[in-house]
Amino acid sequence: MSLAPAHVAGAGMVRFGKYPADVTLERMAAGAARAALADAGADLGQVDGLYVGHVFGGPVAGQRVAAQVGLDGRPVSNHENYCASGATAVREAWVALAAGLHDVVLVIGVEKMTDRISGGVRPDPGDLDAAVGYVMAAGHAMSARRYMADHGATREQIAAVAVKNHAHSVHNPFAQYRKPISLEQVLGARQIAEPLGLLDCSPISDGAAAVVLCSPAGLRRLGLSGPVPRVLGVGLVSGAVQTGLGDLNAEDVSRRAGEEAWKLSGVGPDEIDLVEMHDCFTIAEVVRMEGLGLVPHGRGAAWAADGHTALGGRLPVNPSGGLLSRGHPVGATGAAQVCELTWQLRGTAGGRQVDGARTALAYCKGGTVNGTDGGSVTTVVMAR
Amino acid sequence: MSLAPAHVAGAGMVRFGKYPADVTLERMAAGAARAALADAGADLGQVDGLYVGHVFGGPVAGQRVAAQVGLDGRPVSNHENYCASGATAVREAWVALAAGLHDVVLVIGVEKMTDRISGGVRPDPGDLDAAVGYVMAAGHAMSARRYMADHGATREQIAAVAVKNHAHSVHNPFAQYRKPISLEQVLGARQIAEPLGLLDCSPISDGAAAVVLCSPAGLRRLGLSGPVPRVLGVGLVSGAVQTGLGDLNAEDVSRRAGEEAWKLSGVGPDEIDLVEMHDCFTIAEVVRMEGLGLVPHGRGAAWAADGHTALGGRLPVNPSGGLLSRGHPVGATGAAQVCELTWQLRGTAGGRQVDGARTALAYCKGGTVNGTDGGSVTTVVMAR
Repeated sequence: MSLAPAHVAGAGMVRFGKYPADVTLERMAAGAARAALADAGADLGQVDGLYVGHVFGGPVAGQRVAAQVGLDGRPVSNHENYCASGATAVREAWVALAAGLHDVVLVIGVEKMTDRISGGVRPDPGDLDAAVGYVMAAGHAMSARRYMADHGATREQIAAVAVKNHAHSVHNPFAQYRKPISLEQVLGARQIAEPLGLLDCSPISDGAAAVVLCSPAGLRRLGLSGPVPRVLGVGLVSGAVQTGLGDLNAEDVSRRAGEEAWKLSGVGPDEIDLVEMHDCFTIAEVVRMEGLGLVPHGRGAAWAADGHTALGGRLPVNPSGGLLSRGHPVGATGAAQVCELTWQLRGTAGGRQVDGARTALAYCKGGTVNGTDGGSVTTVVMAR
Repeated sequence: MSLAPAHVAGAGMVRFGKYPADVTLERMAAGAARAALADAGADLGQVDGLYVGHVFGGPVAGQRVAAQVGLDGRPVSNHENYCASGATAVREAWVALAAGLHDVVLVIGVEKMTDRISGGVRPDPGDLDAAVGYVMAAGHAMSARRYMADHGATREQIAAVAVKNHAHSVHNPFAQYRKPISLEQVLGARQIAEPLGLLDCSPISDGAAAVVLCSPAGLRRLGLSGPVPRVLGVGLVSGAVQTGLGDLNAEDVSRRAGEEAWKLSGVGPDEIDLVEMHDCFTIAEVVRMEGLGLVPHGRGAAWAADGHTALGGRLPVNPSGGLLSRGHPVGATGAAQVCELTWQLRGTAGGRQVDGARTALAYCKGGTVNGTDGGSVTTVVMAR
């Protein structure tokens, strides 16, 4: 089952970071939206509808954004799939274009975390895992220990993921952090959940990212002719209920998300030139890349340490800096990944450009559900 | 622009009402989902994906529901458009079927308000209207006073909407209230925002509603052949920014939502046999029916008092009891309306059946945005 691709006519972001209260969710989202519209050469009257991803924006946040942009009146859908919310909005927009409902749509991912989330994302009151201390950082720490024990990987190899992603975002004007960090800094940082320290964890961030997606008729409406990067397909799967004591790093949910990606896009894993990967923690990048089948099982940390996933390596991962260094305003991340893929496929990513990038993948994982191996996982495949 | 219709293979609800804490959102949603699947004769393996509408369920609530039903692993999207969330989920599911992404999907609207909302829905901290006292009940009270002044309507005529809708839901086993009320009771009820009293307002409710939507291939997968009610189209518009002192009851947003409905469904307003209308307050039913052009301007309250919108009247409105009497678990309402339309179009609505119903409309209005005439408005057109 393959649907028509969606053409990315424009992409825009506001720099991720921590903003004061008067830089509201609506203002950030409008900034990203205007940048994407300008990039597409589109005016407001050419937009059929909006798809907005966010988690903590409150009811009808997307409609507030539309009013701020000057797109009030247009159809707006708000999409929530935790950290995959922005990518879910991309998916629903892609489907709407394929169905012929719309021809030009604006997709926005946005989150104002510093206002809404004091001291970090709290688990749901009904989250039984969290009630016994198995909060997110603890889960990833256990994943890291298990990974080291199973594969003989070292703490230094896992820390190399953070060093790599921070080195990449030195070249990303939209990244929250733009200074290189050393291995020693990662290893010596304040411990969060051993063996993971502060620099193994993605930060609390504010930010917004937007793309203009078009059907072929939409491209004509905007007067665009030359080649435009395309979203070939967007996979979406949920975590499955786990029984018994399995491998903590089995990442079956990532394997299934990858299969969705290949099926919906018609692209195979061997064709992927770069990946924007949901590195909410260093170890998460490692095990998810392996779950997708893009890095050999048990070799992900070594690959990071050996530079295979760095710019210029075999398969660059997170040229943008990823969640660790670009930042992670949760609802914005999926849309920011699509912006990065767009710029990479256009060849306009500057100092972080992956040479000759033709096909690329973005992956998000959002939330957890008691008893399953995840919440929602999205996979966006794009080609130039 | 007209998309392929979605066939409603099954519909199911749990009775709306107030439930204790151990009747969780997940349990209610799973109850409605199982009822809809049983009604469709579908088993879990036949479902391609889930579209879940809710407002206050928290992140990845739909994935928690999927795990509870036994549909973990499947793609799940969470949709929020305030009181139109359930209808927005129906819309996205209809689009996905039309695009060919899925063939059998489960749409669930759910809300557990008694746990999440203590004493009513609170306005957003940034809501400037609410900050000066223009909260929801106050807005509808002003609407009622303006309507009476402009059209010579009486308080009794507006109260007749509540009497009618409560009379209807005596016949609805899923309604929160199943006892008839008198005009005297409505007029004598505790005042909330004059002239509106307690019985002019929809209650705080818990509940869930679900439908199984199919493509033609999906119907074959389920082994269904006979005629099945169809969703012909789902309109979605947002409130538009208002400038100057306009008519408080202009309902331009409802007019535009109606135009979307007719355009997307190919059905004209004269063909509608019954309406499920978002009667969050008595006066809201009146002005929204007029905004849609289904009741003559300024005559809606008189129509209610004269029985024209009652069962057996010219155009029955809210045979289910509507939000006023079936109850209003906000994210569930749009899905519950589609359940009611399904049963009406099948001719199986029992004591509340609209004779010979062939074509029907459901309308939701969700939230408000500063400076606009509404949040999101959905219009679902169905035919038997």
